[in-house]
Amino acid sequence: MKLATLKSGGRDGSLVVVSRDLSRYQKVPKIAATLQFALDNWDDVVERLQAVYIALNDNGTWDAQPFDEELCHSPLPRAYQWADGSAYINHVELVRKARNAEVPASFYTDPLMYQGGSDSFIGPRDPIYALSEEWGIDLEAEVAVITGDVPMGASVERSAEAVRLVMLVNDVSLRNLIPNELLKGFGFFQSKAASAFSPVCVTPDELGDAWQDTKLRLPLNVQINERPFGKPNAGDDMTFNFAQLVAHAAKTRELAAGTIIGSGTVSNKQGNLHGSSIDNGGVGYCCLAEVRMYETIEHGAPKTSFLKFGDSVRIEMFDAAGASIFGAIDQTVSVYEERRP
Amino acid sequence: MKLATLKSGGRDGSLVVVSRDLSRYQKVPKIAATLQFALDNWDDVVERLQAVYIALNDNGTWDAQPFDEELCHSPLPRAYQWADGSAYINHVELVRKARNAEVPASFYTDPLMYQGGSDSFIGPRDPIYALSEEWGIDLEAEVAVITGDVPMGASVERSAEAVRLVMLVNDVSLRNLIPNELLKGFGFFQSKAASAFSPVCVTPDELGDAWQDTKLRLPLNVQINERPFGKPNAGDDMTFNFAQLVAHAAKTRELAAGTIIGSGTVSNKQGNLHGSSIDNGGVGYCCLAEVRMYETIEHGAPKTSFLKFGDSVRIEMFDAAGASIFGAIDQTVSVYEERRP
Repeated sequence: MKLATLKSGGRDGSLVVVSRDLSRYQKVPKIAATLQFALDNWDDVVERLQAVYIALNDNGTWDAQPFDEELCHSPLPRAYQWADGSAYINHVELVRKARNAEVPASFYTDPLMYQGGSDSFIGPRDPIYALSEEWGIDLEAEVAVITGDVPMGASVERSAEAVRLVMLVNDVSLRNLIPNELLKGFGFFQSKAASAFSPVCVTPDELGDAWQDTKLRLPLNVQINERPFGKPNAGDDMTFNFAQLVAHAAKTRELAAGTIIGSGTVSNKQGNLHGSSIDNGGVGYCCLAEVRMYETIEHGAPKTSFLKFGDSVRIEMFDAAGASIFGAIDQTVSVYEERRP
Repeated sequence: MKLATLKSGGRDGSLVVVSRDLSRYQKVPKIAATLQFALDNWDDVVERLQAVYIALNDNGTWDAQPFDEELCHSPLPRAYQWADGSAYINHVELVRKARNAEVPASFYTDPLMYQGGSDSFIGPRDPIYALSEEWGIDLEAEVAVITGDVPMGASVERSAEAVRLVMLVNDVSLRNLIPNELLKGFGFFQSKAASAFSPVCVTPDELGDAWQDTKLRLPLNVQINERPFGKPNAGDDMTFNFAQLVAHAAKTRELAAGTIIGSGTVSNKQGNLHGSSIDNGGVGYCCLAEVRMYETIEHGAPKTSFLKFGDSVRIEMFDAAGASIFGAIDQTVSVYEERRP
């Protein structure tokens, strides 16, 4: 089943069921007006939503409309929790190597995770707003899951069962604010801007064989200014799968339905390399920080700049037949202007 | 105006208006079924809620009910954002002094703040659930505000205007999990259990002269196992006021209505001391970590243990006439058992 949230309808938008080929959608206000409502009442609504999905794919709903990704908000325009792991240790190894530091042994057994802001996500086609390019604006292309309720201390197996939906995310990071903020010792706050999620989220069964062991085994395609920048496989080099990340988050407290858990920047090793650009025949990167670290390791200093106002980022994933699974995150960096909610 | 949320009515409970003396309440489903709805639509509902409050204080609503703090959830049972400052630098100075470290100069000009979990708060009379005493369970008694919408880069003045409601919070911390987690560099996650907020939240005007410069100038009373443990004044030694904390949170992203910003553990200097116990004639503490740091500084090691299963914590604030403003957070540490939402 594929779901999306149209912007119309208030702060939480309007839940719609989307056809597998992303061509049509059907509103479902009598089943669930919002995605959060559906997650809060999943067992009561999932069969009826599935029935709409089946009818929609058969072209059989009475008032299906043409689906337009431009009309979408993030599937949860605001969420009660957004916690982002750093499951691709290759990314961490690169960060450390660029500053000649060791990766602590515990990083291979104990997931890194930070608590992110979830009160006001931006839509998949909204601008990446910033007040200054000096913040060092970077994308981070990731996979994320939305969970149901998870009890404190849930096992990895139980955590796997709690995965309700899968989507993509651009976890925008303000790299030049990170060093000082992490030095303060309390983690990220100002150095993480509002994230955007893919127009469509899907139930794991929708991913077929690509969903294995709670990993999504497909390339994640990233373009910057319409040029290919990355295509690493999200199923490779993922040290912790989503079930492990969810269990980590639930160790000392319950997770409520609608919790979003991210994978961290997707990042692949390539032979003995920590990554290589697409121009050099590699799978490229999911954030600018990695290519800059690579440049630092090779040349002593980064050459590639972070995003500037006007730069665009596109993040998308295709199935084996080449069809877009989640629709595309496609954003342009822009000067923030105050909006009314 | 005083507001509370009864547990009945689903995950977000039911908003009620509470009389100034906390004796009566009035449900307001036709104005706002939940506190989040009221915050989302503040300008549209505040006058009607105020009218109910005035009538309730005059004993004039037609179906007012006796108010019982035991029936309350936290005012926002779940929120889209909970960010906790560390505005009482005395607390930070004590932490550092206990390990012979300096407080960085920037800490006096740039607030410390961490992003907390907000998906499933516990009620003010709910147990503090944990799976193990070995986690080092500690209270942190604090003041918190709930904001309206705040634009990115809001000034301190604008941030002050965005403060909608004030309440108390017990930011439960798992002290023995903190050192390893902070070493990982991404801030708190597993080391912060679910927080509980006071039964009642109030508009700033309700605080009269005690609300000055977005600080709450009254003692915060803490009892552990029914014995006085702390009574520091929340208006003293607060290096950053709430407006500054809100502006800090909004520097690089918008804050959505219903964002909760905490003060951090209230902590007073006393003359040349970093604090002294109530038994020694001081104002005591708002967390066990402080008395343990004091013991470490004086005796080389802590003597007081963290909370054990069965221990109780009570947090309350009284006005100049001795009346409870927010009702009491009163919790007992208990072994977690899975509940159904």
